[in-house]
Amino acid sequence: MTNHQFYMRAAIEEAKKAGAIGEVPIGAVVVKDNEIIASAHNLRESAQDPTAHAEHIAIRKAATVVQSWRLEGCRLYVTLEPCVMCAGSIVMSRIPHVIYGARDPKGGCAGSLMDLLQEPRFNHRANVETGILETECSQLLRDFFKNIRKQKKISRTEDNTNA
Amino acid sequence: MTNHQFYMRAAIEEAKKAGAIGEVPIGAVVVKDNEIIASAHNLRESAQDPTAHAEHIAIRKAATVVQSWRLEGCRLYVTLEPCVMCAGSIVMSRIPHVIYGARDPKGGCAGSLMDLLQEPRFNHRANVETGILETECSQLLRDFFKNIRKQKKISRTEDNTNA
Repeated sequence: MTNHQFYMRAAIEEAKKAGAIGEVPIGAVVVKDNEIIASAHNLRESAQDPTAHAEHIAIRKAATVVQSWRLEGCRLYVTLEPCVMCAGSIVMSRIPHVIYGARDPKGGCAGSLMDLLQEPRFNHRANVETGILETECSQLLRDFFKNIRKQKKISRTEDNTNA
Repeated sequence: MTNHQFYMRAAIEEAKKAGAIGEVPIGAVVVKDNEIIASAHNLRESAQDPTAHAEHIAIRKAATVVQSWRLEGCRLYVTLEPCVMCAGSIVMSRIPHVIYGARDPKGGCAGSLMDLLQEPRFNHRANVETGILETECSQLLRDFFKNIRKQKKISRTEDNTNA
């Protein structure tokens, strides 16, 4: 297992925690000096907080740990490509290195819809690596949404039976 | 005074609170049904939190008040054009109406550097109005940075005198 895979696996474990409580399974960890200093998973629904995305929470936790809003020398691992807000929080926290698992063609802003982490007009750019344990990261999401569709189908069938 | 000016003035009062504690003076309020449901000011340095921008905090507070991550029917007033992260949090919270005071040609992502609030590929777009009490909003920032430059000059002069 490579270093990147090791930390991405930790992010996947976080993603599973989200899935277990009915949240879209996305997880993230922040690493500094080869140590995980912050871990988080998506909590948007549980917290009813529009900003409670996995990597956004992990960034805030990491800032608390290093006691600085500048996360220089840190690496962010996240199972899904960051959205516009999370790409923004990466820029704001000056994280120099971002590694993500699955691409998000519908909302990803680190190479898919747009590339905010390489935007020359911002005062910070991050190196980005993709595709680390991509299949596992994608499969978690696919299984989650497949299960939701299945639940909805059962619910509709029950409604029709009771009607 | 128009409605917009009334609420922008409340955002300016928040900005002044930030300035008073040495933070870049930026303030924001979230309004629903013509009532201010959340107010906040920039706390990045005090909290050492890269996400602690005025409008970002106001959005999180507003979500707590309405007990939903969806801030439908809300208006956000902010003294300075939102950055990439805050534009992202507006998209994520589905705020339909954003009013800002001063433009930010260096980092603004609601019309200056780019226009993330009108991006057709995102699943949410916000109406944006600009220039409300623009002079006052800009002046606050200009005075703040002028004062910082002055302090630095005094500090340098003292260093040279003591050398």
